[in-house]
Amino acid sequence: MSRHDERLSNELRAVTIEPNYLMHPEGSVLIQVGNTKVICTATIEERVPGFLRGQGKGWITAEYSMLPRATAERTQRDATRGKINGRTMEIQRLIGRALRSIVDLEALGERTLWVDCDVIQADGGTRTASITGAFVALTQAIAKIHQNKPFSRFPVTDFLAATSVGIIDEVGPVLDLNYIEDTSAKVDMNLIMTGSGRYVEIQGTGEEATFSREELNSLLALGEVGITKLISLQKEVLGESANLVGYVK
Amino acid sequence: MSRHDERLSNELRAVTIEPNYLMHPEGSVLIQVGNTKVICTATIEERVPGFLRGQGKGWITAEYSMLPRATAERTQRDATRGKINGRTMEIQRLIGRALRSIVDLEALGERTLWVDCDVIQADGGTRTASITGAFVALTQAIAKIHQNKPFSRFPVTDFLAATSVGIIDEVGPVLDLNYIEDTSAKVDMNLIMTGSGRYVEIQGTGEEATFSREELNSLLALGEVGITKLISLQKEVLGESANLVGYVK
Amino acid sequence: MSRHDERLSNELRAVTIEPNYLMHPEGSVLIQVGNTKVICTATIEERVPGFLRGQGKGWITAEYSMLPRATAERTQRDATRGKINGRTMEIQRLIGRALRSIVDLEALGERTLWVDCDVIQADGGTRTASITGAFVALTQAIAKIHQNKPFSRFPVTDFLAATSVGIIDEVGPVLDLNYIEDTSAKVDMNLIMTGSGRYVEIQGTGEEATFSREELNSLLALGEVGITKLISLQKEVLGESANLVGYVK
Amino acid sequence: MSRHDERLSNELRAVTIEPNYLMHPEGSVLIQVGNTKVICTATIEERVPGFLRGQGKGWITAEYSMLPRATAERTQRDATRGKINGRTMEIQRLIGRALRSIVDLEALGERTLWVDCDVIQADGGTRTASITGAFVALTQAIAKIHQNKPFSRFPVTDFLAATSVGIIDEVGPVLDLNYIEDTSAKVDMNLIMTGSGRYVEIQGTGEEATFSREELNSLLALGEVGITKLISLQKEVLGESANLVGYVK
Amino acid sequence: MSRHDERLSNELRAVTIEPNYLMHPEGSVLIQVGNTKVICTATIEERVPGFLRGQGKGWITAEYSMLPRATAERTQRDATRGKINGRTMEIQRLIGRALRSIVDLEALGERTLWVDCDVIQADGGTRTASITGAFVALTQAIAKIHQNKPFSRFPVTDFLAATSVGIIDEVGPVLDLNYIEDTSAKVDMNLIMTGSGRYVEIQGTGEEATFSREELNSLLALGEVGITKLISLQKEVLGESANLVGYVK
Amino acid sequence: MSRHDERLSNELRAVTIEPNYLMHPEGSVLIQVGNTKVICTATIEERVPGFLRGQGKGWITAEYSMLPRATAERTQRDATRGKINGRTMEIQRLIGRALRSIVDLEALGERTLWVDCDVIQADGGTRTASITGAFVALTQAIAKIHQNKPFSRFPVTDFLAATSVGIIDEVGPVLDLNYIEDTSAKVDMNLIMTGSGRYVEIQGTGEEATFSREELNSLLALGEVGITKLISLQKEVLGESANLVGYVK
Repeated sequence: MSRHDERLSNELRAVTIEPNYLMHPEGSVLIQVGNTKVICTATIEERVPGFLRGQGKGWITAEYSMLPRATAERTQRDATRGKINGRTMEIQRLIGRALRSIVDLEALGERTLWVDCDVIQADGGTRTASITGAFVALTQAIAKIHQNKPFSRFPVTDFLAATSVGIIDEVGPVLDLNYIEDTSAKVDMNLIMTGSGRYVEIQGTGEEATFSREELNSLLALGEVGITKLISLQKEVLGESANLVGYVK
Repeated sequence: MSRHDERLSNELRAVTIEPNYLMHPEGSVLIQVGNTKVICTATIEERVPGFLRGQGKGWITAEYSMLPRATAERTQRDATRGKINGRTMEIQRLIGRALRSIVDLEALGERTLWVDCDVIQADGGTRTASITGAFVALTQAIAKIHQNKPFSRFPVTDFLAATSVGIIDEVGPVLDLNYIEDTSAKVDMNLIMTGSGRYVEIQGTGEEATFSREELNSLLALGEVGITKLISLQKEVLGESANLVGYVK
Repeated sequence: MSRHDERLSNELRAVTIEPNYLMHPEGSVLIQVGNTKVICTATIEERVPGFLRGQGKGWITAEYSMLPRATAERTQRDATRGKINGRTMEIQRLIGRALRSIVDLEALGERTLWVDCDVIQADGGTRTASITGAFVALTQAIAKIHQNKPFSRFPVTDFLAATSVGIIDEVGPVLDLNYIEDTSAKVDMNLIMTGSGRYVEIQGTGEEATFSREELNSLLALGEVGITKLISLQKEVLGESANLVGYVK
Repeated sequence: MSRHDERLSNELRAVTIEPNYLMHPEGSVLIQVGNTKVICTATIEERVPGFLRGQGKGWITAEYSMLPRATAERTQRDATRGKINGRTMEIQRLIGRALRSIVDLEALGERTLWVDCDVIQADGGTRTASITGAFVALTQAIAKIHQNKPFSRFPVTDFLAATSVGIIDEVGPVLDLNYIEDTSAKVDMNLIMTGSGRYVEIQGTGEEATFSREELNSLLALGEVGITKLISLQKEVLGESANLVGYVK
Repeated sequence: MSRHDERLSNELRAVTIEPNYLMHPEGSVLIQVGNTKVICTATIEERVPGFLRGQGKGWITAEYSMLPRATAERTQRDATRGKINGRTMEIQRLIGRALRSIVDLEALGERTLWVDCDVIQADGGTRTASITGAFVALTQAIAKIHQNKPFSRFPVTDFLAATSVGIIDEVGPVLDLNYIEDTSAKVDMNLIMTGSGRYVEIQGTGEEATFSREELNSLLALGEVGITKLISLQKEVLGESANLVGYVK
Repeated sequence: MSRHDERLSNELRAVTIEPNYLMHPEGSVLIQVGNTKVICTATIEERVPGFLRGQGKGWITAEYSMLPRATAERTQRDATRGKINGRTMEIQRLIGRALRSIVDLEALGERTLWVDCDVIQADGGTRTASITGAFVALTQAIAKIHQNKPFSRFPVTDFLAATSVGIIDEVGPVLDLNYIEDTSAKVDMNLIMTGSGRYVEIQGTGEEATFSREELNSLLALGEVGITKLISLQKEVLGESANLVGYVK
């Protein structure tokens, strides 16, 4: 059986990244992965939270949210409920951790990077699209500092992208699940990898199901294909700034 | 002295309304008023809140929010603070009240209309842009019900648009203040009017200042000019559906 | 048709202001407008919030609340609900803004004025009674500072009072709506004006209705009549201190 | 050494109870004990909380609050803090428990009595004044039901009043502490007793101190004197309704 | 009629106190009173809250909580509800106040003692078991400071223990109520006393009932019996450290 | 270099599981993994949350918490902070998801299983110990239902245990990290597996670091060793009830 949208099992959806999407933030993109659309912004604040002050190190904090009608059914706002739901917290912790793995916080100096990922339209894979887009917004923002006052070691040390893979009944392992596939998948895995092909995070979950070692191997192989393509696109979008990644004077 | 962006005192900024902006909601637009950009969506829920049940009447609830980097400085999310700030509450109450003034809730029947206005980029006038855009999203959503099961009396009884006017030192009364004008205005007034030229809401405030009756009259005149133009644009964008407004079988 | 309590359309209810109502606050009154009773207090704190420190300017913050049985039906306390409702927020922002329009914050110096308006009994017009009463409490409190250490420019620059006007079916435009009138009014407007006859705030709202320019003009005329009377009463109650308003050495 | 306000050790402050203080509630009083002033109201709701439904029994809930400037220093509102502080909770639980001890909840039937005690001015003993005043408001409210539809057994079975006693250095045990005495007392005890001289609640606390059995005995004797006087006053204020207390057809 | 578990009216349940129960805290015990089990820990922090800074005095703060299945029915966690319930607040204020009565806060110096009482299993008397156990944990923790840097005046000035007494229908006054007794008692009293036989706190409550002076006397007598035994056990468990209580160089 | 506590790289810490640890819950254990101690309880409620009602399916909800002094530094309670922190939410979602993967919710019927994991003492691996212990408590609780009214298909379909693996500088990949190892590990992975050797969840994270495919393979191999041993222990502790797992009539 083939995928409902006729994609090959190792085929990403159409992906575009529009840089400098908003006028105010230091870095911003609109990333579209199929029908999933996320605005990612990066804000630079010239100080760090209290617990880091005086250590010469920077910090990265990420926040994630969805517009109420990003989804087929309207979702109640966290602000209206008065608290952030568990899924949102998990995702924003994940985004922050992933970005910190490819940023040299000492090189960054005593600055905080606020990364905001706001999902305008959701069709599966919003957290991985957020990470892939946030990487570009963040690199743009840091490049802007570099223009005025060059770093001797550019704080972004490697590329970073994320995608999802999963196992669907009667279809098998596939790359980049959209919403329909996601809800029917028995195994769901998010992969975050660097430009040099190393893992940053593997989160594989059997949804009221389990999976074997062989299935795990297939999923990892598919994920690598997708992430390689996403990183090519990031390089293209970043243009000149792409050369700064990993730069040491 | 002239306005800093060279507009005439009775000139609106460039306004566009992009209909059907998102795939999921029953009605949705992206409205741009100069650099201010707001996504407005309308959601139809086939039931009403408890206090209205069994009365054969509908309800309209509006929510308003800004992305953290819609503004020049990053704003903390209400969800992170754990409560909605006073300004947000005031604005969402205003939007809901304004829309209810031109919707016949009995004709609507036992349905709730959720209107969400999310500011993507802010440059002054976000609440009035929200109302002008929300009117279109809401009319679209109700027209969609009408297509399947025509109303004998279309619930939207008149057009509705909003704009701001204000008094700026050394410039005088002006129409449609952008952010720079807004922060320097000594009087700031939001006007909401119908297609038949009646007032729905007047909110005029001296910001640590006061104003005379003559100044009030000038402001009202300017506002009328702006609202007339905005309603023309709404008609154009709504196309066929514009004819449903005020329709009685 | 005449008003249900036989008042003329331009007639205020009986108004009294009892000064020095409580033993602890620097300024305090019990204001009664018909059956509406509000305790207004003014507290002087010899410092300002963080965002104003070191600028030589003062600040005014207002809070508003109702006792649970100020109303015919018992209202749940905000403290019990764990958050302040939208109506309360709107009102306390309005009171603060209005008072700031007639206080010279530089003349006040680095002090915060806390104004508390607690409604003991509600019968319509609680927010306008709060403003009219708060003006007296605030002027008393500032006069107390002046006694010990005279200001070269008294921070209260003008008188300030507020009233409501509205349009009632089969009666027309009227001044100072009580609760029964308020619930049946199709248009409701709050007016805040100064001793010199200038507007501080106009908030006119069609409650699921709209109003014409002519109706607006009638409402403004009625409001002016009421506010003039309220300011006379404030002068009487303030006695000697009334002369300090607008005083410059 | 004598008390700072020259009272005898077994002397109450001046006490007045003004019945029917507010227009809306079923029962309401303003109680003044010296400079302490509390508005107590009783609201009757013709249903009980979920956990009691269908058992034929009633319920009593008490809430207690202070106006911000009831005190010498302004206190932040619980609503602003977003939660009720521990002292407030303790007091409202105490008031509710005390009133339930002299109300026959079966005789009351499936009704909830909401008792609200709002301190307008505080000078020590606010919780005991609240209980003494609340008893009158509650009895009035229940008497109002009785007028329309007489109970075969009047739900209020006995009188109830409260006072404080304490031990002050160099003065010894005294009755009815005002604020100055309260802050310097090394032992502080609240006593709640019935018209028949039985204890409902004894709460004696050494404030970073301890007390002996003899001291306890003196305190209990003083309390009895005060409560007897308070109950006489309640009878006087209740007039005819006083005869309903304990009434069985 | 005898007690349902055959105890004499003046008989405690089996009590054990296991010292040094946990590896991390400065002081910790597991106290068991019959089937009631509480983990009490004492944490020393080398600074005081803001309002005490620079006064050379220490502070004690207590927190109390139950595991959800400490009880027969699962109780919802306060953290899940988002606020601490009234009963919990009352208990933690009581524990803190009681401990402060036998600690010389000046001798302690600028330190905060955090006392945590977590009920693992509840069968009546959790608050009194908490106090009795917390005294041991706190003394251990302070003795640990003393070992390194002896106090000239040991901050713990006397022993402290607590128990409950109550009146049960057809049984009469009894000592140390378990859960079944507690729910059927018409009067419930918590007593906290020192090693020298003085009262720290008496909290006697008629649960929808009242009690006479004679009954009060019987309850006080029973309580004294129980507290004497509990303090003997504390001395035994503390071993050498028991001698430090009240020590002055 | 060897591990700081001399364990082999594939060696678990000493593990014990004490069944029936508490008197009230349907299932309860105290699990100790080295110095990490967790009380796990399972509560059966004979109904499901609203969204599942009438579907004939059950539900499992997990909650996780730490005592304040489970850790070397005292941690503030979530209840005191007024909200659950992100880490806690992530962990309780993980525990619930893992247990649902080996419970047949249709076989369970319309019941909710509440699983509570309370960490008494923490020394690394608290979330994996919670899952391993919770499995036993949950199986006990369901076996108790089975005794009274046998299931035709026992709802627990397979065994389930969890452990952590990680990579430590100069040591390499190791099994079952304690706290000291955990804080110095550059890669940290939690593995949850079934009795039949299938994966339920893999969560591998580079802590400001990344890892290769080879390293991933070593970690997976170590985890399998540990989980096999933990499941043997679970079988032993469950005794007769172990045979019910996977049972179909």
